[in-house]
Amino acid sequence: MDYAKEALKKHKEWKGKLEVVNKMDIASHDDLSIAYTPGVAAPCLAIKDDPKQVYTYTGKGNTVAVISDGSAVLGLGNIGPEAGMPVMEGKCVLFKALGGIDAVPLCLNTQNVDELVQIIAALEPSFGGINLEDIAAPRCFEVEERLKKIMNIPVFHDDQHGTAIVVCSALLNALRLTKKKDPVIVVNGAGSAGIAIATLILDMGLGNVILVDRQGILRPDMDLTSGQRKLIDRVNLTGRQGTLADALKGADVLIGVSAPHIVSQDMIRSMAPDPIVFAMANPVPEIERADALEAGAKVIGTGRSDYPNQINNVLAFPGIFKGALDAQATEINDAMKIAAVKAIAGLVGDEELSPEYIIVSALDERVVPAVSEAVAQAARESHVVRTWKEV
Amino acid sequence: MDYAKEALKKHKEWKGKLEVVNKMDIASHDDLSIAYTPGVAAPCLAIKDDPKQVYTYTGKGNTVAVISDGSAVLGLGNIGPEAGMPVMEGKCVLFKALGGIDAVPLCLNTQNVDELVQIIAALEPSFGGINLEDIAAPRCFEVEERLKKIMNIPVFHDDQHGTAIVVCSALLNALRLTKKKDPVIVVNGAGSAGIAIATLILDMGLGNVILVDRQGILRPDMDLTSGQRKLIDRVNLTGRQGTLADALKGADVLIGVSAPHIVSQDMIRSMAPDPIVFAMANPVPEIERADALEAGAKVIGTGRSDYPNQINNVLAFPGIFKGALDAQATEINDAMKIAAVKAIAGLVGDEELSPEYIIVSALDERVVPAVSEAVAQAARESHVVRTWKEV
Repeated sequence: MDYAKEALKKHKEWKGKLEVVNKMDIASHDDLSIAYTPGVAAPCLAIKDDPKQVYTYTGKGNTVAVISDGSAVLGLGNIGPEAGMPVMEGKCVLFKALGGIDAVPLCLNTQNVDELVQIIAALEPSFGGINLEDIAAPRCFEVEERLKKIMNIPVFHDDQHGTAIVVCSALLNALRLTKKKDPVIVVNGAGSAGIAIATLILDMGLGNVILVDRQGILRPDMDLTSGQRKLIDRVNLTGRQGTLADALKGADVLIGVSAPHIVSQDMIRSMAPDPIVFAMANPVPEIERADALEAGAKVIGTGRSDYPNQINNVLAFPGIFKGALDAQATEINDAMKIAAVKAIAGLVGDEELSPEYIIVSALDERVVPAVSEAVAQAARESHVVRTWKEV
Repeated sequence: MDYAKEALKKHKEWKGKLEVVNKMDIASHDDLSIAYTPGVAAPCLAIKDDPKQVYTYTGKGNTVAVISDGSAVLGLGNIGPEAGMPVMEGKCVLFKALGGIDAVPLCLNTQNVDELVQIIAALEPSFGGINLEDIAAPRCFEVEERLKKIMNIPVFHDDQHGTAIVVCSALLNALRLTKKKDPVIVVNGAGSAGIAIATLILDMGLGNVILVDRQGILRPDMDLTSGQRKLIDRVNLTGRQGTLADALKGADVLIGVSAPHIVSQDMIRSMAPDPIVFAMANPVPEIERADALEAGAKVIGTGRSDYPNQINNVLAFPGIFKGALDAQATEINDAMKIAAVKAIAGLVGDEELSPEYIIVSALDERVVPAVSEAVAQAARESHVVRTWKEV
């Protein structure tokens, strides 16, 4: 199927992929008087007297804002907020279809960090959570960090954390399959996704990480971004130098979030036995699946739905937000992210686990219940759920 | 029916009066690939290349933000943005039920004018129009004025203009019925609604206005708000002084947007023959309908649905926004407001017009088509529709 052509046709028919519908009929003056004035004054006053009642009497507790500044949309770059709208609407579609969450696409007409922080923080009364989307690095780090400090609802930059969670789920299962211990893991691409992936790998203790980007293996004496700088003392503990090819020699795992066709068969051959290759540049991976297989890769994952082992953050965000909203969590913390990683990985049983099946399908109906329950439990256990005594 | 009790019960069941639903199923990888990646890149790029396509490929053209800072919610005052949510959701319910418009409630966590302007302006990419709601005077004037200057989509403070439009519709018909010429019209209450009503009456040339508030008949030498100051040279042209009672002597029309029970039967008796009384303080009017009738009022309108002649801005905003969106208007100008006034008034034919029927019901199905067509035509005739050549 020609997805581009079909998407243009369908988007024109839809004129927007979302519809806001009412949960009640408005057919009589009584209907009006209950949903609107004068009856509506009663829930308003109940919330004024007891702020937590906003979760009882309004949709806040099941509503997420999907917010972008249009600066890094898909792989298309800085195409602006209007042009980003179809993606944000699409994300909201997935929130609803997979998580049952009401999501609202908001594309903002500014790319200034201070303004983004101020605007998004001011939206807190209407939403139970904020999904940041397609905001360029390094701006995305500062925006998310500052918002997490000042907001009392979860703020989650999916391009970072959603991706990291699904990669770690796939990695967990690939390591389980290959029985590798203390693997050396090369993460190629040190932008927002690569940094989040490396961080979560280290936080979970899954292996030793070497972080590589265009300038080669990252070292403390290089010109680093603020995100890279934060991580630099935790990676490349053996002090390797050189290019991606140098990093891959003897490595167990390659995780690529970089560019098409920049990994050769020789590089794969130079890795440790039974190498694990996640080539996630989309739609054209770092190395074609067939080429990686021929060069001896044991497990191969990509971002594509037409190959086995699709590493797709659709697996993470609906369940993570559902769990956070169900628990009325005030943030999405590391414990909740790790719970999500394990829940997704756990859906592939030992007997099913194979090089072609390390991760379930994005549309597997077990995913959201498993992830949301694990995330909600982790939220409660780590005491980031709303107690209201503090409010 | 005890509306407060029933509203609490229903709001608890609903947990939010709105739901965001998808216009398509997401059941297969093909579905995903058309509504989301990789297919969605095609409409994104189409919009990037030609900005007007955002109206073709997204929901922007049928989506309105209902925005409040929670500072003047219903008659409840400054109850804050969370407590304002049930009203904003209710407003969105009416947008959908009556106008078929997708509306999103946004309650903002700031009451600072500069911040409100900055935040609302930044939301432009996602919305076809902005309905400002329940923002206190005089802040509401400045917020609306500044936004109208910088935004390229309609911005409409319904508490001002929606109310003014419906009052003028009722007034037009009451004058038609009583055959009054050059009436003296007392507007009691000189806040945002009163000022908007007086302005539209004068813009339409419906009569001479005397503006009254707590300090009595407003005169240029008094301490006036910025909104009152703007209007002061156009009202009270005969230079009257004194109280509301003084203003009403010999007046033809009383329009009250003020407080319960502040108008006496004697005041009504002092008015010109066949006085018109719109007592719109809600839920308790300036004078009870029965008392006004007994004192000789010829036509009585109130804000209540249980009396004849309910003057309710539900009659205006759904059709006005539908007309503005249908025409892709860049603003809602005076010509469009006046077109709405006449369209609403025109729904009561000469043969039906009576003291008990000067205005149609808020749920009359003819209202939105009539208003939206008139408003769209006025937008086109006054050249405020999007041409795209300018963009």
